[in-house]
Amino acid sequence: MIDSHMTLAQRHEQGLKRLNEVDGQAGEEVIAALGDIAPQLADYIVGFAFGEVYSRPGLSLREREIATLGALTALGALPQLKVHIRAALNVGLTRDEIIEVLVQMGIYAGFPAALNAVFAAKEVLK
Amino acid sequence: MIDSHMTLAQRHEQGLKRLNEVDGQAGEEVIAALGDIAPQLADYIVGFAFGEVYSRPGLSLREREIATLGALTALGALPQLKVHIRAALNVGLTRDEIIEVLVQMGIYAGFPAALNAVFAAKEVLK
Amino acid sequence: MIDSHMTLAQRHEQGLKRLNEVDGQAGEEVIAALGDIAPQLADYIVGFAFGEVYSRPGLSLREREIATLGALTALGALPQLKVHIRAALNVGLTRDEIIEVLVQMGIYAGFPAALNAVFAAKEVLK
Amino acid sequence: MIDSHMTLAQRHEQGLKRLNEVDGQAGEEVIAALGDIAPQLADYIVGFAFGEVYSRPGLSLREREIATLGALTALGALPQLKVHIRAALNVGLTRDEIIEVLVQMGIYAGFPAALNAVFAAKEVLK
Amino acid sequence: MIDSHMTLAQRHEQGLKRLNEVDGQAGEEVIAALGDIAPQLADYIVGFAFGEVYSRPGLSLREREIATLGALTALGALPQLKVHIRAALNVGLTRDEIIEVLVQMGIYAGFPAALNAVFAAKEVLK
Amino acid sequence: MIDSHMTLAQRHEQGLKRLNEVDGQAGEEVIAALGDIAPQLADYIVGFAFGEVYSRPGLSLREREIATLGALTALGALPQLKVHIRAALNVGLTRDEIIEVLVQMGIYAGFPAALNAVFAAKEVLK
Repeated sequence: MIDSHMTLAQRHEQGLKRLNEVDGQAGEEVIAALGDIAPQLADYIVGFAFGEVYSRPGLSLREREIATLGALTALGALPQLKVHIRAALNVGLTRDEIIEVLVQMGIYAGFPAALNAVFAAKEVLK
Repeated sequence: MIDSHMTLAQRHEQGLKRLNEVDGQAGEEVIAALGDIAPQLADYIVGFAFGEVYSRPGLSLREREIATLGALTALGALPQLKVHIRAALNVGLTRDEIIEVLVQMGIYAGFPAALNAVFAAKEVLK
Repeated sequence: MIDSHMTLAQRHEQGLKRLNEVDGQAGEEVIAALGDIAPQLADYIVGFAFGEVYSRPGLSLREREIATLGALTALGALPQLKVHIRAALNVGLTRDEIIEVLVQMGIYAGFPAALNAVFAAKEVLK
Repeated sequence: MIDSHMTLAQRHEQGLKRLNEVDGQAGEEVIAALGDIAPQLADYIVGFAFGEVYSRPGLSLREREIATLGALTALGALPQLKVHIRAALNVGLTRDEIIEVLVQMGIYAGFPAALNAVFAAKEVLK
Repeated sequence: MIDSHMTLAQRHEQGLKRLNEVDGQAGEEVIAALGDIAPQLADYIVGFAFGEVYSRPGLSLREREIATLGALTALGALPQLKVHIRAALNVGLTRDEIIEVLVQMGIYAGFPAALNAVFAAKEVLK
Repeated sequence: MIDSHMTLAQRHEQGLKRLNEVDGQAGEEVIAALGDIAPQLADYIVGFAFGEVYSRPGLSLREREIATLGALTALGALPQLKVHIRAALNVGLTRDEIIEVLVQMGIYAGFPAALNAVFAAKEVLK
């Protein structure tokens, strides 16, 4: 939960816990890889994205990941999609449910977006 | 459900039922507006998108709509987003859950995409 | 045709002719509207886009417009799509052929892109 | 041709023929690669995209491919662009005509999109 | 400046100052419009975007706005572009410099993106 | 500077000088790679983009590159972003200033776009 007396350091701690719960090792690797090139971006992902946005109530982590899979497929953001396919498994989606989301996006983002997403999933899920 | 002995006419019927269940009147209006300009596109949306993709098992309609809201926000497809915000209400999402999905997309598609989606939602939800 | 001894002024003249042939009045209106805000952009469109790119041999104007309709639909560039729907009519495509191109793009860019393009066409073609 | 008494199985057969005519071996490889991860997407591409959309009259296959090259360049969908560059050769475009389409898209989608498309074409056409 | 002992409330205050300095009244209006539909998004824009990202040293506000104009033009995010054209004037860019940035983006994002941006600027700058 | 009596050959010469000043060897390599596949695109980049657009007064090369880094990050045009990160160094931006621009784009284009840009920068800047 977020409250306005929380310090940025506490937010960071809360974000790290959430990141581990959702993305597991794949998330940690992204954060580590940012350390020597853009540490502020690492902090925004941990502190803001996970410490604030993903720490809100109102949607289950399962539902948050479904929305994220949809958006990343539509955006063609394949490296991040791979991380979130692992995250989706972590928060309880099955392999079939993940594919179902990616394929449905073909309607909205076009078949090339769905194809690229499915082939990215194939690498992660094999 | 889909099976290979189904005719395209039967698929269309199945799609119409699904479209009504999901999109209600807003979906019917889109289909009607296509009639005199691109009837084949109307048929693809009813027959293929709803008769095939949305008629598959494997995800609840609630979860299908969450993924769709994520993708349409990311794509900036605002007219379709408005239709699917109504669809999301139809299949059981609350106003707060819908906003939660749109705002989360700011992380992935940027704050302008989230802002445009939220202001589109404001028009639909008022 | 382009040759390296042509001056930019000659290229501009050649571009104006091509613009009129392709876009007709709709193109001229865009160029006029740029005059007091970004005259350099007006010059790039006339001189570069029409004087150079559209003045090359190798594809008919009809085929150039088909490719352009495909791209503008995929990009969701609706004001420019409307200009090029008029251009497509000018260079010989029928109303049905134009719609056929826009609808086919649903496969590649998603149904929202095709829908927005078809509704833009409906305004132009009515 | 499509008619409403056609079954989905017959549509699939019709789509396979069309896919072979257009995409040849490159298309078959994509379909085969989907078999163990997203067979429903394979069916949508064969049955819907080729069995329905590409089986309509109203545009030649040559013109359909020109529109598709335009859209895939604009979308930056490079794996699919490579398949459709081969398809364009299959349905009668020359190497120079294909390049002409991709380069023209620089006007609409920007030079990076045209550059990425041309370098993808270089791999296919060499 | 950001430090880890700052509370989220202090970050919000810092963000509000920065927002006023950069976006002026146009920014405040966006924040106010979010109040009854997505207050968390208002807080992310004030607290995160302005309180954290725009409060970092390392680039002048003038340079931050140039980068932002480039990105918003490329993304076709016209409502946000209008806000940032006003912001660009606030932090010292001239009307001609703003147009120069928008037109240059035609090279990278295509002429339709530059045209839409320039016509949005025309509304703001008149 | 551009004037209407300049020939296309003179524009090309002016563009080559500008290209070398901005992009250095990385730009020359792109132009060379186009020679046997799309020489017209090479000419458009040298003659039009650098000979016309980048040869205008009104913005410093440093500011032109900041806008370009913003747009290329937003577009996910990674091969071109790498060329322009080198260009940014050539015209006087520091490594830290470049990263600052790329990270700020996360607000507008989403964190995946910023992440992909930063990792592309890491390859160039190491």
